[in-house]
Amino acid sequence: MARFYSPSPNENSKWKIKIFDIVFGNDTHAGKWFDIVLILVILLSVLVALFDSIGTIHLSHGRLLLQIEWVFTTLFTIEYIIRLAVVKQPFRFARSFYGVIDLFALLPMYLSLLFIGAQYLAVLRVLRILRIFEILHLRRYTKESSVLINSLLNSWRKIFVFLLAMLAIITVFGAIIFLVEGPEHGFTSIPISMYWALVSVTTVGFGDITPVTPLGQIVASMLILLGYGIIAVPTGIYTAELATSLRRNYDSRVCESCGYKSHESNAKYCMKCGSELSEKS
Amino acid sequence: MARFYSPSPNENSKWKIKIFDIVFGNDTHAGKWFDIVLILVILLSVLVALFDSIGTIHLSHGRLLLQIEWVFTTLFTIEYIIRLAVVKQPFRFARSFYGVIDLFALLPMYLSLLFIGAQYLAVLRVLRILRIFEILHLRRYTKESSVLINSLLNSWRKIFVFLLAMLAIITVFGAIIFLVEGPEHGFTSIPISMYWALVSVTTVGFGDITPVTPLGQIVASMLILLGYGIIAVPTGIYTAELATSLRRNYDSRVCESCGYKSHESNAKYCMKCGSELSEKS
Amino acid sequence: MARFYSPSPNENSKWKIKIFDIVFGNDTHAGKWFDIVLILVILLSVLVALFDSIGTIHLSHGRLLLQIEWVFTTLFTIEYIIRLAVVKQPFRFARSFYGVIDLFALLPMYLSLLFIGAQYLAVLRVLRILRIFEILHLRRYTKESSVLINSLLNSWRKIFVFLLAMLAIITVFGAIIFLVEGPEHGFTSIPISMYWALVSVTTVGFGDITPVTPLGQIVASMLILLGYGIIAVPTGIYTAELATSLRRNYDSRVCESCGYKSHESNAKYCMKCGSELSEKS
Amino acid sequence: MARFYSPSPNENSKWKIKIFDIVFGNDTHAGKWFDIVLILVILLSVLVALFDSIGTIHLSHGRLLLQIEWVFTTLFTIEYIIRLAVVKQPFRFARSFYGVIDLFALLPMYLSLLFIGAQYLAVLRVLRILRIFEILHLRRYTKESSVLINSLLNSWRKIFVFLLAMLAIITVFGAIIFLVEGPEHGFTSIPISMYWALVSVTTVGFGDITPVTPLGQIVASMLILLGYGIIAVPTGIYTAELATSLRRNYDSRVCESCGYKSHESNAKYCMKCGSELSEKS
Repeated sequence: MARFYSPSPNENSKWKIKIFDIVFGNDTHAGKWFDIVLILVILLSVLVALFDSIGTIHLSHGRLLLQIEWVFTTLFTIEYIIRLAVVKQPFRFARSFYGVIDLFALLPMYLSLLFIGAQYLAVLRVLRILRIFEILHLRRYTKESSVLINSLLNSWRKIFVFLLAMLAIITVFGAIIFLVEGPEHGFTSIPISMYWALVSVTTVGFGDITPVTPLGQIVASMLILLGYGIIAVPTGIYTAELATSLRRNYDSRVCESCGYKSHESNAKYCMKCGSELSEKS
Repeated sequence: MARFYSPSPNENSKWKIKIFDIVFGNDTHAGKWFDIVLILVILLSVLVALFDSIGTIHLSHGRLLLQIEWVFTTLFTIEYIIRLAVVKQPFRFARSFYGVIDLFALLPMYLSLLFIGAQYLAVLRVLRILRIFEILHLRRYTKESSVLINSLLNSWRKIFVFLLAMLAIITVFGAIIFLVEGPEHGFTSIPISMYWALVSVTTVGFGDITPVTPLGQIVASMLILLGYGIIAVPTGIYTAELATSLRRNYDSRVCESCGYKSHESNAKYCMKCGSELSEKS
Repeated sequence: MARFYSPSPNENSKWKIKIFDIVFGNDTHAGKWFDIVLILVILLSVLVALFDSIGTIHLSHGRLLLQIEWVFTTLFTIEYIIRLAVVKQPFRFARSFYGVIDLFALLPMYLSLLFIGAQYLAVLRVLRILRIFEILHLRRYTKESSVLINSLLNSWRKIFVFLLAMLAIITVFGAIIFLVEGPEHGFTSIPISMYWALVSVTTVGFGDITPVTPLGQIVASMLILLGYGIIAVPTGIYTAELATSLRRNYDSRVCESCGYKSHESNAKYCMKCGSELSEKS
Repeated sequence: MARFYSPSPNENSKWKIKIFDIVFGNDTHAGKWFDIVLILVILLSVLVALFDSIGTIHLSHGRLLLQIEWVFTTLFTIEYIIRLAVVKQPFRFARSFYGVIDLFALLPMYLSLLFIGAQYLAVLRVLRILRIFEILHLRRYTKESSVLINSLLNSWRKIFVFLLAMLAIITVFGAIIFLVEGPEHGFTSIPISMYWALVSVTTVGFGDITPVTPLGQIVASMLILLGYGIIAVPTGIYTAELATSLRRNYDSRVCESCGYKSHESNAKYCMKCGSELSEKS
C-alpha cells in the first residue's frame, strides 16, 4: 500500500511519516501491532452487531451494546480521519478499494441516527477484514486470488451470454407456470413465479411455492431438467478457463542441447538430457 | 442481417431501401436510434405485463395497463408488417429465427381475445431482446455463444444417452417409492412419485413430498447418492467438450482445393486434400 | 445380438431361423417392424401402469386397465418363450443382460397374484426400452455410452474411497446432530439423523427435518460447507477421467515426411507438410 | 504398519512379537482372522448404537443394548491396552492416526457415565473401519486416496481465499435480508439470517426460512445467482488440480545426488541437479 499513498520525502513533517508507517505500513514493530489490534477490533465490532440483532439479547443488553458500537465507531472515525490526514493524496485514498470500504464501514452507525435498523449494516465492517491479505504479507494469497479472479474475468463474456439466456428461460417459464398454476396455488404474480423459476432452475428448491397440478409438475420437471443440464455450463466455462491458466505454469524455455520444450517452471536442468537450462528472462 | 433480406438494387423503390436501412440495418444514425427505441419499448411492454400479473395492481390499474399493452401490440404489429413489406423475400424472413420470435411476440395479445390469461404470455417478447446481440455489433458475443452452443451440440449424443438413463432411473425409483410409501404419505400416484424422484435426483429437493417411513428414507438415500454421483456426468461431458474446443484454435480459412473449412490455426496444409492453405490475412 | 444366439446352420429347422431373424434380428423388413411394434407396446404397457396408479382412474377404470395389463403380460410371456425357443443356447440368453430384463418385466404381474401392489413394478418394463439402441442400429450410441461408462469404471476405485469417506462423515454428523437437536426437533434417531445429514451434504435439502437450535444450525452449517467443498470431488474425478478418454481421439500416427505427431483421427494429409498419411492399422 | 511399531529383534520376548503379528500384522493366518473379526465387531457395535438411538427400541431393549455396548467397550479397551503393550514405542502409537481414532472410539462410553447421551457418540467407531484399507492390503486404495487428498492440499490456498470470500458474502447478505425481512418473517437475528444465506448460496435450500416480501425475494434471487455462479469455483479449482495430477505421472524415484523426489515418470535426468536418474525397477 505504501506505493500508493506514501508522503513525498520533501514534506518534512516527521510525525506524519511516522504515523503513516504505523497506520499503513506493516514493516515496523508498531505497524504490525496496529494491524493486529485493528483486525481484532473489527471482528469484535462485527460480533457486537451480530449479538445485538438477537431479540432477547437486544432487549436485555441492547443499550450497552449500542454504547459499545458507538465507541467502536468513534475509534474507526478517528482512524479514518488520520488515514486521510497522513496520505499525500487524500482523495485518491478515499476513492481506492480500501478507502471506500473504510467509509462504508462507518456510515451505517451515523445513518442509524436517521433510519432505525441501519446500525445492523455495521456488519459490512467484515469487508475490512479482507485487509488481512495485505497485513500477513501474503503475496501468495493475492496471487492465488488473482488466478481465480482472472479466470472469472476471462470468461465474463461467456457468462454474460449465459446469464441472458437464463433470464429468458426464467421469464418464459415464470409466465407459463403462472398461467398453469395461478394465484390459488401460491403463484400470485409473474415476478413471484420468476422467483420460483430461478429457485428451481438453480436446484436451490426452497419449497415455499411448489406446483400442485399435474400440468404444473410437468412444467416444473422440464424446467428442472433444463436447469440440471445447464448447471454444467458455468462450471464448464470456469474449469476450462482455469485449466488453461494453470497449464501456463509450464514455461516456454527450450533446452539448448536437445530441444525439449515442456519444462516445469522451477526446473534448472533438462529432464531429458541433463544439460543446464537458461535463466528465465 | 442485411445479407439475408436486402432488396435487390434493381428494385428502384427508394423509400423501401431507406426504410429497410432504418428497420433492419444499424449502420445509419436513424437505424441505430430505431433499434435503441425498439429495445426500450420491448422492455417497457414486458414490465407492463409483469406488473399487470400482480393481483392488487391488476385490480386498481388493470384497465389502464391493458390499454397500454394494446398500444404496444399495435405498434409491434405495424413494425412486423413494415418488416414484411420491405424485405425482398417476406416468407424467408417470416420463417427466420427473428421472424418467428417477432410473430410469437404478437400472438398472445390477439389470442387473449379468445382465451383469458393469454395476454401474460406477452412476456415472450423478452426473447426479442436477444436481438441486442445484432444491434450492438457484438460479433464477439455471437462467437462466444457459438462456442458454448457448439460444445453442447457436440455432446448432445452423450447427453441423450444420459437422459435416457435418467428416465429409466426416475421411472424405476418412482415405482418403488410409490409402493413403499403409498398415497397416504403424499405419493398419490407413480407419475407424482416420478416427479418426486426427478426433484430428488437433481438435488432440487422442494420438500413438498418427502418419505416418512424408514424404508422410504433408505430408498430416498440410495436415489440421492445415485443423483450425487451422476451430477458429475453432464458437467464432466460439457467441461471436457468445452476444454477441447478452447484448446484447439480453429480459424476461418477455407481450403481452395476441396472447400474443407475446419482447419486448426497452425495448419499449413489442408488435412483433407493436402494442398497448401493460404496465409491468414 | 445375432452373434450371440444365432442357431447353428446345421440345425435345418427353417422356421426357427426365420422366427429368429424376426424376433432378434433387425435387418429384414419383418424384423424391423417387429421391433418397432415391440417398443410401442412396451411404452403403452408402461403408460397403462402409470395411469392405473392414479387413485381416481384406478377407481373408475382399474378393472379395465388390469385386463389390458394382463393382455400385455400374456403377449410378453409368449414373446419370451419364443425367444427361448429359437435361440441355440436358451440358458445363455436367459442369463444375458436383455434376457434378465425381459424376465424382470414379466414377473411383477405374476407376483401381483400373490402380493397386492406388485403390478405397479410392471413399470420396470421401461428398462426394455434400452433395447432401442440395438434396434436403431445406433452403434455410435453404444460407443458414446461406453465412453461414459468406461470413464465411470476407470474412476470407480476413487469413487469407492470417496463413498467410504462420505459414509464416515454422515455417520459422525448424524450422531452429533442427534445429540444436539434431539427427538423433540424431529431428529428422532441416529439413522434418521444420518438420512438428514445425507440430504444436507448432497445439497438436496428437503427441509422435512431442520435444525432449530443455534448449536444445531452451526453443526448444519459446517456439514453444508463440507458438502459444498466435496461436491467438487466426484465431478472432478469424472471430468478428469473423461477428458483423458476424449483426448485419446487423436491417433498415434506419425507423419513419415516431417515427423509431426498430433493428427486428428480423420486427417488424411499431414497439416504441417501436406504429405499423405498412412492408413490407420 | 509394521514399519512403524515393530518391536526390535533384540527384545527377545517371543510372545510379544507373536501377539504383535496377530494384532498389527495381516500376513499370518491368525493376523488376517483377527482383522476380519475386528471389522465385524466394530460394525456390530455401531449398529447397536444406531438401534439404541431409536426411541421405541430404546424403551423396550435399551437395557440389553447398553449391556452389549459395554461388552464391546470392554473388548475394545483390552485390545487398545494390548496394542499399547506390544508396540515398541507406545506413545508414538498413541499419537498416530489409528491410535487416536482407537482412543476416540473408547471414550464415549466412559464419558456416558458422566454425561447422559454421550454413548451415542460411540458411532465414532465407524472411523475405525478406515483401517479396512490396511487390512485388505489395498495399497492401491491408499494411492488413490492420496491423489485425491494431494489435489485437495495443492488447492487449499485457493480454497481458503474462496472460503473467506464466501464468509464475506454470507455476512453481508445475512445483514441485508435481516433488515429487509425482519424477525416477523422468521429472520429473527443476523446469525440466523447468515445461516439462511449459507443454506441458499450453497443451493441446499431447506425452506425452513424463506423471504416473503418482494424486496426480500429480489435479495434472495441475487444471492442465489451469485451462489450459482460461484458453485463453479471449488469444482473448477479441484478439477483443474486433479487433471494436472493425473496428467503428470510422477514416480517414486529419488535422485541419488540431491535427494529430489518428485520426478516425472519419463524423466531421465534430475531437473534440480542434472545428474542421471536410475532406471525404474
